[in-house]
Amino acid sequence: MTTPLIQMALDSLDFDATLALAEQVAPHVDIFEVGTPCIKFNGVKIVKALKERFPDHKILVDLKTMDAGEYEAAPFYAAGADICTVLGVSGAATIAGVVKAAAAHGGEVQVDLINVQDKAACAKEAAEIGVHIIGVHTGLDAQAAGQTPFADLKTIADLGLNVKISVAGGIKSETARQVVDSGASIVVAGAAIYGAESPAEAAREIRASITFAGV
Amino acid sequence: MTTPLIQMALDSLDFDATLALAEQVAPHVDIFEVGTPCIKFNGVKIVKALKERFPDHKILVDLKTMDAGEYEAAPFYAAGADICTVLGVSGAATIAGVVKAAAAHGGEVQVDLINVQDKAACAKEAAEIGVHIIGVHTGLDAQAAGQTPFADLKTIADLGLNVKISVAGGIKSETARQVVDSGASIVVAGAAIYGAESPAEAAREIRASITFAGV
Repeated sequence: MTTPLIQMALDSLDFDATLALAEQVAPHVDIFEVGTPCIKFNGVKIVKALKERFPDHKILVDLKTMDAGEYEAAPFYAAGADICTVLGVSGAATIAGVVKAAAAHGGEVQVDLINVQDKAACAKEAAEIGVHIIGVHTGLDAQAAGQTPFADLKTIADLGLNVKISVAGGIKSETARQVVDSGASIVVAGAAIYGAESPAEAAREIRASITFAGV
Repeated sequence: MTTPLIQMALDSLDFDATLALAEQVAPHVDIFEVGTPCIKFNGVKIVKALKERFPDHKILVDLKTMDAGEYEAAPFYAAGADICTVLGVSGAATIAGVVKAAAAHGGEVQVDLINVQDKAACAKEAAEIGVHIIGVHTGLDAQAAGQTPFADLKTIADLGLNVKISVAGGIKSETARQVVDSGASIVVAGAAIYGAESPAEAAREIRASITFAGV
């Protein structure tokens, strides 16, 4: 079994605070996610700064692209993004555009299933188009309404697609193992880390909770 | 009848080229739209720069917000945005969050109907939540597949909602009048202006085509 990866969602808008938080948790996470509000507020320079400071980490830019897939995503791959996200609700043409941009730079694409009605159909189509990661995602506004990503994770994992599955939406150290056992290869944590008294310790606990003996 | 407004979509990624283009067309347009790829690439500083240079123009930031509505939109209103966009596919909670952020800064909200299945239902719900503008929008990837916004415009105009209607998607000087006659109060032009030999002349032609005698 592949060791699951931990993705840290950087949701602050503040440029320096974002880099400082990344610095604290870097030893315990594999992927830094530049959150959607963060990328819109700061622009591409925060991607360059993170890649320069953390060349051995993967950088995911949560573009949530909805249109003009290749045009929007290409400059982020060029700036150092390893993974960009595209919305499942955008449709096949936009997803294909981001896949094209990724291929030109050796990057990966994650499709975000947030608010997609038929998640299984979207995941299958996205995998056929060539995305590398299916993102099962309960958004912040849906979390506030009490929703969780667990049922959707089972739906996607049961498809047996040849893609990685990333799960986001209120995951804590207590639930990370359940997510991995249910088929996630990437566990996304945000508030559970940056909201903790010690973000580094919180990230370390999540790592410990999902690390299997012998791997 | 209210004079229709012209919105210029600034779709370049280049900071200086964006400001230079805005300068050329400023006398002929009412609203500058910071396109989604442009805002993600440049960040909030381009909103501040446009507002400082063009205090009498409205600035629309095409955030296409999908989640975390208030958190994402609030800093853009604070930076000088008059209008921010939110995706209709995001749902009521996210739309309400952007409406809250707008209200705190005296701004307006536009809901973008791109890829919404039941556009009439979404427009009605958005109007009830308090959005000011319904954006009928055929995206670039859908335009490439031959789609236009005209049928959707009729659907929305026929609802008779107490909101402005903005129409975007391949509009040229030859079609701008048709869009206005069909109920649009804001006409969005992008490629028809920035792709012209003289952007200023192209913008002037669109203005002339939709200006009624006596207004």
